[in-house]
Amino acid sequence: MLTNPRAERVRSVRALGRRSSRERAGRFVAEGPQAVREVLAFRPETVVDLYVDPQVGDRRTDILALAHQHDVRVHECSPEVIAAMGDTGQPQGLVAVCRPVDVDLAAALAGAPRLVVVLTNVRDPGNAGTVIRAADAVGADAVLVSDASVDIYNPKVVRSTVGSLWHLPVVRGESVETLLHACRQVGLRTLAADGSGDQLLPDTDVRRPHAWVMGNEAWGLEPAVRDACDEVVRVPIYGHAESLNLAMAATVCLYASAQVMRRGE
Amino acid sequence: MLTNPRAERVRSVRALGRRSSRERAGRFVAEGPQAVREVLAFRPETVVDLYVDPQVGDRRTDILALAHQHDVRVHECSPEVIAAMGDTGQPQGLVAVCRPVDVDLAAALAGAPRLVVVLTNVRDPGNAGTVIRAADAVGADAVLVSDASVDIYNPKVVRSTVGSLWHLPVVRGESVETLLHACRQVGLRTLAADGSGDQLLPDTDVRRPHAWVMGNEAWGLEPAVRDACDEVVRVPIYGHAESLNLAMAATVCLYASAQVMRRGE
Repeated sequence: MLTNPRAERVRSVRALGRRSSRERAGRFVAEGPQAVREVLAFRPETVVDLYVDPQVGDRRTDILALAHQHDVRVHECSPEVIAAMGDTGQPQGLVAVCRPVDVDLAAALAGAPRLVVVLTNVRDPGNAGTVIRAADAVGADAVLVSDASVDIYNPKVVRSTVGSLWHLPVVRGESVETLLHACRQVGLRTLAADGSGDQLLPDTDVRRPHAWVMGNEAWGLEPAVRDACDEVVRVPIYGHAESLNLAMAATVCLYASAQVMRRGE
Repeated sequence: MLTNPRAERVRSVRALGRRSSRERAGRFVAEGPQAVREVLAFRPETVVDLYVDPQVGDRRTDILALAHQHDVRVHECSPEVIAAMGDTGQPQGLVAVCRPVDVDLAAALAGAPRLVVVLTNVRDPGNAGTVIRAADAVGADAVLVSDASVDIYNPKVVRSTVGSLWHLPVVRGESVETLLHACRQVGLRTLAADGSGDQLLPDTDVRRPHAWVMGNEAWGLEPAVRDACDEVVRVPIYGHAESLNLAMAATVCLYASAQVMRRGE
C-alpha cells in the first residue's frame, strides 16, 4: 500500500501532467473510472501501472477484473496518494499510467477511410478532447492532430475524450501540410470548416470520402490552410449568435457527414 | 474612480455570484467585453451599472459608446476592484450589473413558435449556457428552463451563452410539467432527446413545430418526463463513444431541426 504522497514514484506520476515529462518518459496518465475502464477494455497492452484506492476498487470490480485479466500491475494507494498523482481536484480513486496510443499517419489512413478529422492549431484541451469524442461518436476513421496543436496526452484532453482516445486511430506530430497531403493521396476531399466560408454546410456534398479540417477555437483556420482545402464550409447561423464553439461546429459537421454517408446502411 | 476592493459597493457586486444574493437584489452580473457588448446592444435598458477599468475602456470604445448612447451609469474602477467584483480569474476589465431578462411563459410562446428548447434538471452551468447559445445559433424561438435546473444568471451560465442570453426569450422558474403543457397548448410537438429512445434522430419528422426536451447531463430525463413527451429521440452513435455530452446532443438535434425547417427559405 502506497501511503506517502511525497514518494518519488508519486511525484513521477504527477509530473506526467507536464508535456516535457510525458515526452521524456513516454508515458501519460488516465484518471477516473471512465477513462481507466476504456483503456483497459480497448488498449490494455498500453497500461503500465494502475493505482487504485482500495475503497474505490471494491466498488469498481469490473475495472479490477479487466486489469487482472490483462496482467496489469495494480498498486493500492491511500486517497492522499491518488490525489497527489492527479491533475484534477477529483481523481476518483483510479489513475492509470499509459503508453502512447497514437499511430503512424500511413497506418491511420490505410483501409480506404471515408471520414477523417484534421485538427490544426487547436489549443484548448476541452475542445480538442470533445472533437475526438465527436469523431468517435460518428464512427470516423481517424483523427489527425497537427504538430501545432495541444498535446493529446494533456490530462484535460484525455478527460474530455471520455475514453474515445482509445477507440479510434489518432495521429500526432505531423505538420498540417503533411496531413492534408496524406488525406488527398488516399482520395479524401478536404473540407475546411470555417466561419469565413461562403458555402453552407447544408449545400455541401458529404457523400464522397472527406476530411473535415478544423482550426483554432478563437481565430479559425490560417488563410494558407483554408486555401489549401478543396472547399471552405460554414455552419449556418440562423439567429443572433456570433458563432459556435469549435466542439459544437465539429459535432454538427461530423453528424451532417455521418447521417448522409450512413443513409441506407 | 473606485479603488478600494473592500468597499461595500464592490462586495455587493461580488455577492451576485451567489444565487441567494441575486434573488434578493434582483440583479446579476455580465463580465467581459463580449457579454457586456451584447447586453448593451440587445437589452441596454436592463443594465443598471457598468464598471470599467479605464485602460480597457480606452480599447473598447464601441462598448463605452453604446453605454453612453443608452445613458448607462459608467463607473471607472481600478483593475483590483474589477477583479474583486468578478467570478472569474479573468474579468477582462468590464463588469455590468444587470436586471433579469427572463420573460413570462405566455410571452415566450406567443407568435406561433416553431422551434423551442426545454431544459429540465440541467445542473452544469457550462452545458446550460452552451445549449442557450446553440438555440440562438439555430434561431430557436425560446428556451424554457425548468425550476429544477441551474440558475440562468449563474455567472458561468451567463459566460457560456456568449451573449445569447440577451438574444432570445428565456423563461425560468416553472415546473417541467407546466412547460410541457404550455408547449402542447401552442401546438408544439414535444421531442424528448434521450439516449434511451428507440427512435433515431434521422428518422424523426422535424418539419412540424416542436420543442426539444433535454434533461440532466449525467442521468438524462426522468421517466415521467420522457413518458409525457410525444416522442423519445436518440442521437445515433456510430462508433464506440458511450454518449454525447448534453451540449453536443442539443446542438445536433437543433441543427437537424433548423436545417429541415429552413430548407427552401
